[in-house]
Amino acid sequence: MIDKAFAQVIRELRLSLALSQEALAHEVGIHRTYVSQLERGLKSPSLKTIFKISKALNVSIAEMMRLTEMQLAEDS
Amino acid sequence: MIDKAFAQVIRELRLSLALSQEALAHEVGIHRTYVSQLERGLKSPSLKTIFKISKALNVSIAEMMRLTEMQLAEDS
Repeated sequence: MIDKAFAQVIRELRLSLALSQEALAHEVGIHRTYVSQLERGLKSPSLKTIFKISKALNVSIAEMMRLTEMQLAEDS
Repeated sequence: MIDKAFAQVIRELRLSLALSQEALAHEVGIHRTYVSQLERGLKSPSLKTIFKISKALNVSIAEMMRLTEMQLAEDS
């Protein structure tokens, strides 16, 4: 579902920037284990957190969501 | 901030469909008071909830976020 699709998008964007989970977590101001949970689709982040992640990954939320919805369509 | 911008977007989309807060709440499966809180920017919805709201409002999440980021730019 949507959290799984978003999980893959975060992970791919993070890796494309050669950031570790640790570095992303630090940038966003969340715990590394939370990044790990997000990347496994185990948590549904709040809009506030999504916004901070988008800043850290240097993309708009709209673009992250476009990729997420594409991923969701692929998954189903 | 981002929740305030999203608040305005939900409200405008809901009104453009001539839906009451009650009707939107029912459609999404959340309480009317939660819709009211979202529309005042008092809560930061989870991605799961944003997804359900986008379905109910018949737009993509990407489009909602494009509008939200435009609103945010206007606000600041």
